[in-house]
Parts: sequence; structure tokens; C-alpha cells
Amino acid sequence: VRTIDWVDGAVEIVDQTALPDVTRVLRLSTVEDLVDAIRRLAVRGAPALGVAGALGVALAARQYAADPARREAAVAAVQHARPTAVNLARGARRAAARLSAGRDAVLTEALRLRDEEIASSAAQGRLGADLVTELCGPAARLLTHCNTGALAAVVGGTALAAVAELHRRGALGGVVASETRPLLQGARLTAWELRQLGVPFRLAVDSAGPFLMARGEVDAVILGADRICANGDVVNKIGTYAHALGAQRAGIPFLVVAPESTVDTGTPDGAAVEIEDRGRDEVLEFRGTRTAPPDVDAVNPAFDVTPYDLVTAIVTDRRVIRLDKGERI
Amino acid sequence: VRTIDWVDGAVEIVDQTALPDVTRVLRLSTVEDLVDAIRRLAVRGAPALGVAGALGVALAARQYAADPARREAAVAAVQHARPTAVNLARGARRAAARLSAGRDAVLTEALRLRDEEIASSAAQGRLGADLVTELCGPAARLLTHCNTGALAAVVGGTALAAVAELHRRGALGGVVASETRPLLQGARLTAWELRQLGVPFRLAVDSAGPFLMARGEVDAVILGADRICANGDVVNKIGTYAHALGAQRAGIPFLVVAPESTVDTGTPDGAAVEIEDRGRDEVLEFRGTRTAPPDVDAVNPAFDVTPYDLVTAIVTDRRVIRLDKGERI
Repeated sequence: VRTIDWVDGAVEIVDQTALPDVTRVLRLSTVEDLVDAIRRLAVRGAPALGVAGALGVALAARQYAADPARREAAVAAVQHARPTAVNLARGARRAAARLSAGRDAVLTEALRLRDEEIASSAAQGRLGADLVTELCGPAARLLTHCNTGALAAVVGGTALAAVAELHRRGALGGVVASETRPLLQGARLTAWELRQLGVPFRLAVDSAGPFLMARGEVDAVILGADRICANGDVVNKIGTYAHALGAQRAGIPFLVVAPESTVDTGTPDGAAVEIEDRGRDEVLEFRGTRTAPPDVDAVNPAFDVTPYDLVTAIVTDRRVIRLDKGERI
Repeated sequence: VRTIDWVDGAVEIVDQTALPDVTRVLRLSTVEDLVDAIRRLAVRGAPALGVAGALGVALAARQYAADPARREAAVAAVQHARPTAVNLARGARRAAARLSAGRDAVLTEALRLRDEEIASSAAQGRLGADLVTELCGPAARLLTHCNTGALAAVVGGTALAAVAELHRRGALGGVVASETRPLLQGARLTAWELRQLGVPFRLAVDSAGPFLMARGEVDAVILGADRICANGDVVNKIGTYAHALGAQRAGIPFLVVAPESTVDTGTPDGAAVEIEDRGRDEVLEFRGTRTAPPDVDAVNPAFDVTPYDLVTAIVTDRRVIRLDKGERI
């Protein structure tokens, strides 16, 4: 199943707002439907949003073929559906650059972007799986955090693409998925994806990760990155750093899988990154159920920084950087 | 407010099943009411259950003064209300040993146990607060985990008694309470207690602890223990070990506060302790709200082991053991 695709003249997406309770495919035949789906977070994740942007322009080119002014407005609506989503605007711009060549040229460009994302994910999966087997042998037991799978991409994803590839190769000993408070992407999305893949796994609360490593139940940690700094520091979902400390103490590899576009040589190190605090509401409740007394304050950093000396290797779609062997970005 | 006490001929407890939404005091005038409250976990925590056991026998001595057979049955019912609660049975036996001296003697013994628990908590609070100020200066910012406060004791508690004492002394810079998945004792109980005490605090997801330490927002970690092994290894609520790793990397003290009765010299080290797995339900839902797809497997160790080399000091009601200085139990 592809998270987002072009099927018989319309965009189809897996509706992420319904997961994990219901697996629902939404068929979006108009630009307006697609913009609404993006705004409602029915489709999310940088690679998937890039493809959504490009396919949105393809929809606009068909829908408003006879009305250039409305077409232009529709392209702008796609591009700005989520202001902070860099990939969305980039994908829309790339497809829009072909508008003068006609609607088929626009669609071809959008499908090319989709195929590039699929190829990137496959490359990350292959390189990641190769490295895991090299470091951990033929039945690696892995711990992963947050959601790094197909739901953020078209298929595959990043770290979860490597997990899926190991499973296909028969080289996976099992997975621990940490639930990833506060938004529980591990429990909701990764668990759903692993079940779709038929991968044997167990869910755990985040704080159990380091102990499961100490107890000898994990051979390596494998997860994604939101940004990789010039010195190798990794900015990723809150909880990543705690798992890295656990891996170091247990003497097991800590592996980061992310597309080359995540490497940001303009940021010297993690200290230079401003970490977003997403406010108390996410901490104080879960899916409408309150977890604490009302009016309690919270601190809620969305990401943390894992210093490069705790990272064994960074795997991108193009290369493997063995930080543990002194290799640098 | 005392979590459990003897008031005008009956036992009064703060009903913990209603927290944090409602603060309700239950008045238990009969042995049957008390046994029911213990079974429903309306009163919990080793010290509180010890006092509940003793006061339950005091209730039995009054209620069945004229009927020794029914009195004996009532004492047994108190003693076995929760089979694994060592302190409950111990408290009941201690008060029951005075039955032959009459009901006032029984009550006197029960109140003596209550007062001993209050004194123990006060001593832990004083010694803990002294150590925090010695190590962190006059405005320590502390991170705590799980619930170690009055709700498990009569007043005060263990680590939270030290936090409260620092607050009374004006020597507290603030508290981060980690929510403590899966049962959220931090979010539900510690947050409630800190608010009652007027202590400034922020709640955080468990996995944020190590990062907040790395970012310089925490001066020391202070928490309790379920068991302290002969070599100094600390068995405590899952998540404790991850915080200890964070404290070590950040170079801040990691302090354990627990009554002397927690020290178990019969257990050589943490590896000798069997860690209870409490099953998947706690991980897969919270208060009836599901967090993951149905039929997902989970691993749910209730406790973890923090190796003694990560522990700066253990504080009991009688002494301070500076493991960081080579002192041993």
C-alpha cells in the first residue's frame, strides 16, 4: 500500500487521522479536497507532503485547464496549505514549473518526484539493512522510536524501511517499538505499519528502552532524524537521546537512517538548533483523556539532540557515515 | 492532610482512586469498609498499608469486642486484604499482638506505628534536603520520577519529603515531575501532591528527562526505591535507569531516598532480582483510551535496575551512603 499515489485521475491517500482504529483510503479528486486533507494532517511527513504538493498541482492543471487565473490560485493554495512544510512548497513549485508544457507534463514531473522518493527509501532500506546485518548478525533484534515508516513517505520510509528490508531478507530477530509520548506515533503509527508488514514486534513505554538494552534484549537501536548537523549531532524526536545513552551503556550500535536532504551542513552542531516547545496540552492529555490535574504546567520539547559521539553510524540514501570509526559528514 | 489517620473513632483516608480529578476523604468505620478500600487501592504504598493494617485491627478490636471469633476473622481479613503487601500484614500482626491487653492497647500500638512512619518520613526529608543543598546550593532544581510522596505514606513520603522540606526551607529552585508511563503516577499523584504543597513544578514526558538535564535545566535527580541491593544497585519504577544515565552524562547528582527497611542485604545485586512484567494492557491503553491497534504485543517491565556506579548517594531515615565516595551499604 502506498501512503499517497495517483490512481485513475485522482490522488489517493491513507487517512492518517483514522489510524490505528480504521484503515481508510481517501480519494481526492479536486485541489480543494487535497488542500483540506493536508490541513487536517490526513497526509503528513516531509517526503509524502512533497509528493502531495506536486500531485496537487497536477490536479489543478486538470481541474482548471481552461481558467489560468483559478489554476494559479489553486497552485498557491496547495503550496501554502501548511506554511512550515518546506517539502510541500518545494514539490508544488517543481511541478508548477512544467505548467507551460501542459497538464501531462505536470503529471509526469509529479510522478517522477514520487518515484524518486520511492527509490530514496529503497536505498536507505538496503544500506541500513546491510549495516545492521554487518554489525549485529543474521537475526538482529532492533529498537525503534517514533514513526519512520511509509506513512511519512510514499512507501518504506527511513529507519522502518531498513526494518522492513531485514524482514524481507529473513534477517530480523524482532522489534521493540517505543510508544513515543506525548503524541504516541510509535504506538499509533509504527505499530500499525509493523502489523501491516507482518513484522514481529512488541510495544514498550519509552522509558523502558534503556533497561531492555541493559537486559540484553536489543542488538541495535535504529531510528530517523529531523536534522543532522555538520558535526554529526542528530536532532530527532524527544526520547532519541535517552535511547542513545542506553545503547552506549549497553555497548550496542546506535544507527540513524535519514535521506541525504536531512544533512544540514549550515548548522554546525545541536547547540545551534532551537528546539520547539509544543506546550502543555500534549503532555496533559492523551486522545481527550486527561492525565494530570487541571492547570498544571508542563515542559514539552518536541525534539532532542543526540551528540555525535553517541552515534555509531548515519545511513542516507547515498552513503553510510561511520562516526564510530572517525568518519565525518 | 494525612493520607491515612485515626479520627474520632474511625479511619480516614484520602481516596486515591478519585485523584487527581476529585479530592475525597473516605471515613471507614468498620473493618469491612477498610478491607474494601485496601482492595480497591483507595489506599496504597508500603508505609500507608502498614498503618492501615494496624488501624484495621484497632477497628476490629472495637467492632467485635464481645465476639472473639468474629474479631479473629476480621483481623485475618485485614491481614490478607492484599496478599503481596508485606507491610500490611506486618502492621496488622504488630497491632494484633496487643489484643490480649484490650482495645485501647491495640489502638495505642497502631498510633505508635503511624507516628514512627511520620518520623521516618521527616528524617528522610531532613537528610535528603541537607544533602541536596550541600551538593546543589540554595536553589536546587530537581527532577523526580513516579510518586514518592505522602500518598504512599502518612505524610511526607520519601524523595518527595525531601522536596517538600527544601520548599519549606526556601531552598528549592523548581521541580520537573516525569509523568511515569504506563500508570502515570507522576502525572496523576505527584502533580496533585506538588500542587497541594504549593511547590512550583512542570510535568514532562519521561523521555524528556535526560534531555532537560543535558540542556542544564536540572541540578539533581531525586527519587525513591522499591529495593536497594547489598551492592547498592537500586530497583525502582521503570524509567529510573534512563534518568540515571542522563544524570551521569550531565554530571549531576543522582539521589535515592528510601526508608532503611528498603535496604535488602539478602539480595546481592540487581541481577538477582526478578523484574515483574505487568502485561500489555497497561501499555496499550490509558483510562479506557486505546493507544495502539488491537492485539498488539507489549513488553512491560514494572521496574528497572540502576547499577550502583550511577548512584551518587542513598538517603535513608538513618543515614546517607555516599556511593560516589566509595561508601557502601
